[in-house]
Amino acid sequence: MSTSTNLPSVTVLGLGPMGRALAGAFLRAGLRTTVWNRTPGRDRELIAQGAAGAATAEEAVAAGDLTVVCVVNYDAADAVLRPDSVTRALKGHTVVNLSADTPDRARRTARWAEEHGIRYLDGAIMTAAPSIGTPEAVFLYSGPRELYEEYRPVLAALGGGHTHLGAEIGRAATFDIALLDLFWTAMAGYAHAVAIARAEGVTAGELAPFAQGIGAILPPLFAEFAQDADDGSYSGAINPLTSAASTMSHVIGLSEAHGIDAGVMRAAEGLARRTIGLGHGTDGFIRVAEVLGRR
Amino acid sequence: MSTSTNLPSVTVLGLGPMGRALAGAFLRAGLRTTVWNRTPGRDRELIAQGAAGAATAEEAVAAGDLTVVCVVNYDAADAVLRPDSVTRALKGHTVVNLSADTPDRARRTARWAEEHGIRYLDGAIMTAAPSIGTPEAVFLYSGPRELYEEYRPVLAALGGGHTHLGAEIGRAATFDIALLDLFWTAMAGYAHAVAIARAEGVTAGELAPFAQGIGAILPPLFAEFAQDADDGSYSGAINPLTSAASTMSHVIGLSEAHGIDAGVMRAAEGLARRTIGLGHGTDGFIRVAEVLGRR
Ligand SMILES: NC(=O)c1ccc[n+]([C@@H]2O[C@H](COP(=O)([O-])OP(=O)(O)OC[C@H]3O[C@@H](n4cnc5c(N)ncnc54)[C@H](OP(=O)(O)O)[C@@H]3O)[C@@H](O)[C@H]2O)c1
Ligand SMILES: NC(=O)c1ccc[n+]([C@@H]2O[C@H](COP(=O)([O-])OP(=O)(O)OC[C@H]3O[C@@H](n4cnc5c(N)ncnc54)[C@H](OP(=O)(O)O)[C@@H]3O)[C@@H](O)[C@H]2O)c1
Repeated sequence: MSTSTNLPSVTVLGLGPMGRALAGAFLRAGLRTTVWNRTPGRDRELIAQGAAGAATAEEAVAAGDLTVVCVVNYDAADAVLRPDSVTRALKGHTVVNLSADTPDRARRTARWAEEHGIRYLDGAIMTAAPSIGTPEAVFLYSGPRELYEEYRPVLAALGGGHTHLGAEIGRAATFDIALLDLFWTAMAGYAHAVAIARAEGVTAGELAPFAQGIGAILPPLFAEFAQDADDGSYSGAINPLTSAASTMSHVIGLSEAHGIDAGVMRAAEGLARRTIGLGHGTDGFIRVAEVLGRR
Repeated sequence: MSTSTNLPSVTVLGLGPMGRALAGAFLRAGLRTTVWNRTPGRDRELIAQGAAGAATAEEAVAAGDLTVVCVVNYDAADAVLRPDSVTRALKGHTVVNLSADTPDRARRTARWAEEHGIRYLDGAIMTAAPSIGTPEAVFLYSGPRELYEEYRPVLAALGGGHTHLGAEIGRAATFDIALLDLFWTAMAGYAHAVAIARAEGVTAGELAPFAQGIGAILPPLFAEFAQDADDGSYSGAINPLTSAASTMSHVIGLSEAHGIDAGVMRAAEGLARRTIGLGHGTDGFIRVAEVLGRR
């Protein structure tokens, strides 16, 4: 970008719910915004809001200093970015890839970008499409810090919090996957809790305020357990693994008594029992992370 | 209890970490407190604080208007309460059972109590021992409302929030198990997230602030999903099940690429795929609860 007052033009490739939210936020911030999507027609509302609609991906990337890619995964990102005509048009430009995938795919994309003279940042979005442009949005990035600093004022148009996690290009994807692991596992626990509550005549609405209470006690425990994990202290004085495993058995028993699949909790209990079997029964639950990571 | 200014005497059976915390809170509130534990010697500190130590369980229950039982589970509670001498001493007294177990065990205990002229409330404690006596403690009860109302001023000595969930005696245990299901499943997700982050060179401490962010977005989602589940609306407009399943596959892929067991997420993904297979791919994740509950 030339000067900080002369904001660059932005291109958004991929107009699913998230791509449309990103392009909408850029437009609302007053940036010149060009959009493109594989399947035509998804750009209509954005064009009505002032976006330039490009007929091809190469035309789109040629129009923007910064290209933001937000498609389903890196196979899709490759399908969009790697045709020769698009790769050539990107030479000297900057790409920020906000599609979700594994850290290894981010590393491969960075190698491809370097080979073709394309400046590359990887990123991940940790909040849902409606959060974009609001203070709730959470964006993570990894890759060259100077490049992040250079485009930070532009990315700020997306609202919320932006964190650069380091130069190693795979870090944003690593955090993304670890956090989605936590998120979807917790959601599976909640869905299962609702199912067994219902089998006992308790509605989801009756359970919800107390489930929210459980949600509220998790963040401080995450911080405490992280310290235990990094210190290798694993104190189980307040709640030893043996006690957790016994509670897990109650959950499985009640679930299966109602004919409700308890596979998720059976797998979790298996990890706890395996950790106890290795002699860690008086440790805290987070000792499981170490046992999981052992080859 | 005779009058509200003349508070009754309390007996605590079971002096594990939780029983000791309960007895300590009763003592600090100025109640006459008698304590007993199967293995002798656990009452020493409490006696130093003013508790009466009983030599036998029958002696202990005879001394208290209200007997609070807090042992590992209902097999242990039965072992303490059902010897003839103890059952006889409890006649006309009130028992609040704060041990954790299934709703069915609570129902069986209530039948036993009724047969022996014992007034019975079931309960569950949703927070850890150090919370007892502080505003953070969470207690759930079920059973006769009048009995709950009568002993509420005494139970208030334990601090925190007290909720009567209804007359059906199994409700406290149902909520307890459903909430522990959510809690331990989420913890298993967190331990796994820490393990895969570490395999990619990210420490638990680096991940923790973002894990706390995920924790913070869960409570409002629990409320929203409960409404969907009770309405049968299951909207997946913002985040369809197909998208969740694809994310889950990324987690499994990265985990197994590092040789880290992904059994919990494999089970969760299996539920998502089964729900999609039943034609609900465009619904929101909580549709899984309905599929789980279907025989
Ligand atoms: N939606 C959210 O709330 C949210 C939250 C956090 C992160 N994310 C991430 O953001 C990214 C985009 O998500 P999304 O919600 O917008 O929807 P999505 O369903 O994940 O992705 C849809 C987009 O991918 C494109 N696409 C798929 N395969 C393609 C291919 N082979 N070639 C070219 N384009 C292809 C689609 O184009 P067509 O229209 O042509 O099919 C569409 O633009 C994903 O990685 C997602 O994980 C989304
Ligand atoms: N600790 C917490 O933070 C916490 C939080 C919420 C709920 N709870 C619940 O509170 C209850 C008590 O927990 P806790 O932490 O105090 O420790 P615990 O290890 O669950 O229970 C220990 C108590 O159970 C007694 N016990 C075990 N088997 C017995 C038997 N067959 N006969 C008589 N007594 C027996 C032990 O007596 P001995 O000393 O003789 O072995 C001891 O008093 C449990 O149901 C637990 O789930 C605890």
